[in-house]
Amino acid sequence: MKDYKALSLKMHEKLQGKIEIKSKVSIDSIDDLSWAYSPGVAEPCKAIKKNKETIYKYTSKANTIGVITDGTAVLGLGDIGPEAALPVMEGKSILFKRFAGINAIPLCLDVDHPDQFIETVVRLSPTLGGINLEDIASPNCVYIENALKKRLDIPVFHDDQHGTAVATAAALINAVKVVDKNLNDLKVALIGTGAAGSAIAKMLKALNIRKIHAYNKEGIIRNSGYHTFDFVIQDLLDNNIINTPDDSFQTLADIIKNKDVVIGVSVGNIITENMIKTMAKDPIVFAMANPIPEINPELAQKAGAKIIGTGRSDYPNQINNVLVFPGIFKGALEAKINNITLDMQVKAAYAIARVIPENALNESNIIPSVFNEKVVASISKAIANM
Amino acid sequence: MKDYKALSLKMHEKLQGKIEIKSKVSIDSIDDLSWAYSPGVAEPCKAIKKNKETIYKYTSKANTIGVITDGTAVLGLGDIGPEAALPVMEGKSILFKRFAGINAIPLCLDVDHPDQFIETVVRLSPTLGGINLEDIASPNCVYIENALKKRLDIPVFHDDQHGTAVATAAALINAVKVVDKNLNDLKVALIGTGAAGSAIAKMLKALNIRKIHAYNKEGIIRNSGYHTFDFVIQDLLDNNIINTPDDSFQTLADIIKNKDVVIGVSVGNIITENMIKTMAKDPIVFAMANPIPEINPELAQKAGAKIIGTGRSDYPNQINNVLVFPGIFKGALEAKINNITLDMQVKAAYAIARVIPENALNESNIIPSVFNEKVVASISKAIANM
Repeated sequence: MKDYKALSLKMHEKLQGKIEIKSKVSIDSIDDLSWAYSPGVAEPCKAIKKNKETIYKYTSKANTIGVITDGTAVLGLGDIGPEAALPVMEGKSILFKRFAGINAIPLCLDVDHPDQFIETVVRLSPTLGGINLEDIASPNCVYIENALKKRLDIPVFHDDQHGTAVATAAALINAVKVVDKNLNDLKVALIGTGAAGSAIAKMLKALNIRKIHAYNKEGIIRNSGYHTFDFVIQDLLDNNIINTPDDSFQTLADIIKNKDVVIGVSVGNIITENMIKTMAKDPIVFAMANPIPEINPELAQKAGAKIIGTGRSDYPNQINNVLVFPGIFKGALEAKINNITLDMQVKAAYAIARVIPENALNESNIIPSVFNEKVVASISKAIANM
Repeated sequence: MKDYKALSLKMHEKLQGKIEIKSKVSIDSIDDLSWAYSPGVAEPCKAIKKNKETIYKYTSKANTIGVITDGTAVLGLGDIGPEAALPVMEGKSILFKRFAGINAIPLCLDVDHPDQFIETVVRLSPTLGGINLEDIASPNCVYIENALKKRLDIPVFHDDQHGTAVATAAALINAVKVVDKNLNDLKVALIGTGAAGSAIAKMLKALNIRKIHAYNKEGIIRNSGYHTFDFVIQDLLDNNIINTPDDSFQTLADIIKNKDVVIGVSVGNIITENMIKTMAKDPIVFAMANPIPEINPELAQKAGAKIIGTGRSDYPNQINNVLVFPGIFKGALEAKINNITLDMQVKAAYAIARVIPENALNESNIIPSVFNEKVVASISKAIANM
């Protein structure tokens, strides 16, 4: 993989901000000022005061979202705070514009408690068309998203949860075709139960996958003996989304053995070649830790993995949420959908998967490139037509 | 005056938002994604985490401000709420870009109490380079601005107060030259003591004007008998910025009589020709209510007013805060000034005034056009050099 570190620092210093706000009109005369600002601007104000819905007609709300973080789980860097999160939020803003034509305002909040986050976003929401939550630590991210979905009448989407889950589902939908298996027969080992892992578990359930064992840094997830309080994981167990294995399962190797699929959203280099060798026929390995996958793809292949996906762009099958969030928001904004349901996310996964024609599917081609222009249109159409 | 109402509605509907967010770079390859987003973007994040000040080097913070309102005092429309305020905030954003090259993010807050406003802005502030407060009712606007100035280490400026005050001061500085009077001899009648009026009073005091009588919708402002609690007006009285007239003063006409200057930031058509006729020699009349001035300029002139300024673009001497806020923020951001003091605002007023050469000053030319390119540079230089 190329070393992007020096280039990235250099470019960020040169640009001093990757985004800018631009006027759609030129203001070169008193006449221009008079319609765009005082006194003419009073007219759309009065219209919106009279009928709040006309804000979609006269302002940027219809095509503007907030990309909002508290900086508590930024990339793999952890809780680095709101200031240090800004380069990522600006990057996300670029991607929203590039892939979906959406204006995304980076907002990095200095808050101490998820309730402060929720309150702040509610106060900010009147002029935003949607909320993309970003890089918030689990389980707060789930608590925050649930609360905002209840309180707001605009779409709310936590990309680290659902973007990753939809992209993973899309890859899996095509991967099982390549190995000629059925989704509802799959046995899955899930490594990592944070924002991404917990959402992936729910998505797998929605794909009718019923046999999931999970593992995180505390060990095997099971109903008795899971000793760190985390309401998100408890919910996964209570709703039988994650199954509790019997007492003979004690290690990560036990969890992976005999599984059709292993999905890692955890840390680098924790899956060994020997673990892969114990999997069921034609193993599917999604090792999505970034930048270092749970197992080096070459090693996984040598150990017998049939299909390998990662989060990285320098290997085949990049499972990347850039495939997901532009189309999700484009569809939601265009169709004025105020609740992005799990069902829509399933539809989005199938919409991504079918961008690759069946006859073009193979071990190295289960998921389209982010630059494939059909992806965003396929998702937004699927969502808008629900 | 042209009818801009229909044009404004039409243009707002056509544009669906007067601003957009634009990427400064094109993203056309995996390499582009790799430095601008994952994995390269981790580098500026880590640099900022290590040294918070580098946020100015690697992100848009250095040239991005929030244009923030609660929608409680929008134009002359009053408390129309955050949604209906958005067209004005977008307009302001355009002007910041057009005149100062600054990225201004419109943020319209749904809050019930000024403390909620303050708290929300504090939480939003880590990634903003400055805060332009806008269209907040008095006296909350003063309370909010004072609190934010104390709590934040970035410049905070309430344009409705200080932008108007600086523009008025600039016009007055040149007007007294035309009528050959001295600022510190002036007797002033001030009509309106809201956000703009109270700030104008403080600015007049800073210009060494010590004889000010004021009037608002409750009547003459005086120490005894002022019956609406308003800490801003009380402060003006307590600090002898506004003088309490003796009991013989009972009406607006009494306040205007014998004054050199009358400044109106109130409502239309409350000054009569007869009132103007009772003023001191060479009356200066700034009738800045919008869109209908306190007295029609033609009538004021007929009644003997020597110099007339309004807020309107279709009469000479437009006293417009568009002259002020771009240069104030350009200077503050460039010089990293975190407190825009009254002294700086005085300097800004003189900087605007001297854009018109002394030999070009006359009754109809006391203040430059907002399109005069020297204005912003003159202000920002004056502020940065303090």
